[in-house]
Amino acid sequence: MTSEGDDSLPHLHIDVEACDGGARAGTVRTARGAYRTPAFMPVGTRGAVRTLSAEDLEALGAEVVLGNTYHLMLRPGAEVIAGLGGLHRFMGWRGHLLTDSGGFQVFSLRPTVDEEGATFASTYDGSRHQLTPETAVAVQAALGADIQMALDVCPALPAPHQAVQEATERTQRWAARARAAFLDVAARPAHQAQFGIVQGGVDEALRARGARHLAELGFEGYGIGGLSVGEPRSEMVPALAAATAELPPDRPRYLMGVGDPAGLVEAVANGVDMFDCVLPTRLARHGTVLTTAGRLNLRNARFARDDGPLDPDNPCPLVSRYSRGYLRHLFGVHELTAMRIVTLHNLWWLFDLVARMRAAIVQGTFATLRRDVLETWDGR
Amino acid sequence: MTSEGDDSLPHLHIDVEACDGGARAGTVRTARGAYRTPAFMPVGTRGAVRTLSAEDLEALGAEVVLGNTYHLMLRPGAEVIAGLGGLHRFMGWRGHLLTDSGGFQVFSLRPTVDEEGATFASTYDGSRHQLTPETAVAVQAALGADIQMALDVCPALPAPHQAVQEATERTQRWAARARAAFLDVAARPAHQAQFGIVQGGVDEALRARGARHLAELGFEGYGIGGLSVGEPRSEMVPALAAATAELPPDRPRYLMGVGDPAGLVEAVANGVDMFDCVLPTRLARHGTVLTTAGRLNLRNARFARDDGPLDPDNPCPLVSRYSRGYLRHLFGVHELTAMRIVTLHNLWWLFDLVARMRAAIVQGTFATLRRDVLETWDGR
Repeated sequence: MTSEGDDSLPHLHIDVEACDGGARAGTVRTARGAYRTPAFMPVGTRGAVRTLSAEDLEALGAEVVLGNTYHLMLRPGAEVIAGLGGLHRFMGWRGHLLTDSGGFQVFSLRPTVDEEGATFASTYDGSRHQLTPETAVAVQAALGADIQMALDVCPALPAPHQAVQEATERTQRWAARARAAFLDVAARPAHQAQFGIVQGGVDEALRARGARHLAELGFEGYGIGGLSVGEPRSEMVPALAAATAELPPDRPRYLMGVGDPAGLVEAVANGVDMFDCVLPTRLARHGTVLTTAGRLNLRNARFARDDGPLDPDNPCPLVSRYSRGYLRHLFGVHELTAMRIVTLHNLWWLFDLVARMRAAIVQGTFATLRRDVLETWDGR
Repeated sequence: MTSEGDDSLPHLHIDVEACDGGARAGTVRTARGAYRTPAFMPVGTRGAVRTLSAEDLEALGAEVVLGNTYHLMLRPGAEVIAGLGGLHRFMGWRGHLLTDSGGFQVFSLRPTVDEEGATFASTYDGSRHQLTPETAVAVQAALGADIQMALDVCPALPAPHQAVQEATERTQRWAARARAAFLDVAARPAHQAQFGIVQGGVDEALRARGARHLAELGFEGYGIGGLSVGEPRSEMVPALAAATAELPPDRPRYLMGVGDPAGLVEAVANGVDMFDCVLPTRLARHGTVLTTAGRLNLRNARFARDDGPLDPDNPCPLVSRYSRGYLRHLFGVHELTAMRIVTLHNLWWLFDLVARMRAAIVQGTFATLRRDVLETWDGR
C-alpha cells in the first residue's frame, strides 16, 4: 500500500532518480512541494537556526529545516505557536520543516519511563511533563511541520544487550501507538506526514526486525536513531545497512543526528537520504571552520594576518569578502557577527558537499568522492 | 581657502541643496564618492556593527560607518589592519568610513593627562599606552578611513567652569597639533580627510570661540563633542547653535554620540549634518524597539501572542515577516538571531527617520516633522 492509494493518508514519497551502489539521489515529493536528496537539515532548535534568519536559510539554499519539539513545547509552547499560525509562519520559513518527537532531549534528562511514556523535569523551570507517543503526535500536529517523528525510546549508551532489546521492542510498540494516534488526530494538518524511527543499537538482527515492523505500519518515511553515538564506524555501518535493507525503497530514510562529512558519505553509501546535525552550526559558533583541507580553528594565532577566505579551495560566495584574519579578530573580541558569518560558511560548505554527493551519484562516480572525503575526514 | 584650491589637501566638502530654517539637506562629496545628509552613522566598534555584516549594512542603505580607534588600535592593532589592506578591506565595507580619535574612550578610563597627551591602561590587558594628537593621527592614517578625527580633551562631567575652559583651550592646542601632524604625515592615505572637534561644555562663548579657532585651522569638517551627555536640552541646544553659527557653511558638521530621535531633530534644526550613536544597536540587543509610537520593550508579556510586525505603522521591509511574538520568544530563549533582526529594524527605522528629515527639509515642512517627533520622543 502506498499513501497515493488512499486519499486520507498524507502524500510523501521519494522518487529515486539515480543509484550508484547503495547510494541514492532522489526527490522527495510532499504536499508542500519537493526537496532533493541526499538532504542535510540544519537544526532550528528553538525556532531559529542559531544566529541565522529565514532569509539566510533561503540564501544558503536550505530545503528542509528541523525544529526541536522538546524546546518548542516548553518555550513558547506548541499552543502559542499554533496561535501564531504554526511553526512555518512563526519562523518565517517557507521551505520544508520536520519536527523531532522530543524523545532524544527527554531521554537525555534521565526521565521516569514506563510503558505509557516518559516523565521529565523541564530544563527551563523544573516543571514536570509527560511525553507519550500520543502527546508527541498531538504537540507536533499543533506545531504543524511537514513531517513529524514518532516517539522512540533512546536508551543511555553504552547499554547491555538486554536493555537495548527492551528499548527496541518498546520503541516498536510506541511506533504502533504513534501511528494510530497520528491517523486519528482531529487537528492533524492535512499536509503533515509521519516518520517512524528504527532503533536497535548495533545489533543487526534487531535493526532488521525493527525496520520490517515499522514498514508494516506504513509510515511515510523512516528515521534511523541511536547511531553515531560513540560506537566505531565498523559497528555503525552494518547496523545501518541492516535497517535500510528492510525499508521500502519508495520512502525516504533519515539518519538522525549525523552531520560529519565521513558519516555522511558512509550513510549515503548505505542508502540514507536525509540527515540533521548541530555539528556545522555548533562548530561555527566556536570558531571551527569546515574546509577542503579539514577542520580549521580560527582562534589559532597563525590566522591573525591571513588575508584569505575561510576555505580558499572552496570559498562560500555568501561570505567570501571576509578574511580569516578579520574573522579571527571578531572571535577574539566576542563579536556575534563572526558566529553568523562562520555559520553561513559551514552550512554552505556542508550543503555543497551534499550537492557534490548527489552529482556524483548521478554520474556514477560516488565511490571516488566517498574515498576522497574519507581520506580527509575519517576519524575527525 | 577651500581644499579644492590646493591639490595637496584632501577633497571633502558639503553641497547644501536645501535649507529649511537652520536645517540643511546636502551631499558630502569625497575622494570615495558622496553621501547624503543628514546622515546617521552606525557604530562598528570593533570592526563590525554588532551582530551585522557588511552585506547587512548595504541592505540597510547605510552610507557612512564609524570605527572606534581605541578598540581597533588595541585589538587587532592598527598595523595588523593596515597589513590586511586597511579598515575598508578588513571589514568588507565599500561605503564611507569615519574613525574617531580614541579620545572619548581613553578619557572614560581616567587617564593621566598632560599637555603632551593622555596615558591610559588598556581594558584588554592592562598594558600602558599614550595617545597624543600626533599618535591619534598616525593610528587613524594606518586604519585608512575616509575621515579621521582630531584628538580632543573630554573632561569628566559635570565639571566646574574653570575645568571646562582649560579642557577647551587644550583641545584647541591639540587641534592645531593634530592638523599639523595630519598635513605632514607621510603615510596618510590620499583619500583621507580630517575633522576637528569643538568642545566647550554648555558655555556658548566657549563654543563659539572654539568653533572660530577650528575654522581658522581649515579642517575638512567639524565634530561637536561633549554634548548630550546628561545636560538638559535647554542647555544643549544653545551651546550647539553657538558652535554651528561659527562653522564654515561648505563643511559638514557632525554632532558626536547623538542618536535619539528628539536629539536628531533638534540638532538638524540647528544646522548639524552628521550623527553617530550606539543607541539603536544597543537598544536592539536588549529587546527595545524603535517604533512610530515610541520605544517598545519586546520582553513584555503582552507581546507573547502578538502576530504583528515590530512597528505596524512603519514595518522594516528587511524583517517584516517576523512577528513580535516570535522575536519575543527568541529573546526569551537567548537566540542571537533576535538581536540581529531587531538591530536591522532599529537601524532601518532610524535611517528612515533621517530620510524623512531630508525630504521635509527639501519640501520646507521640517518644522512639522520636528514637532511630531518631539511629541513622541521628547524626554524618552
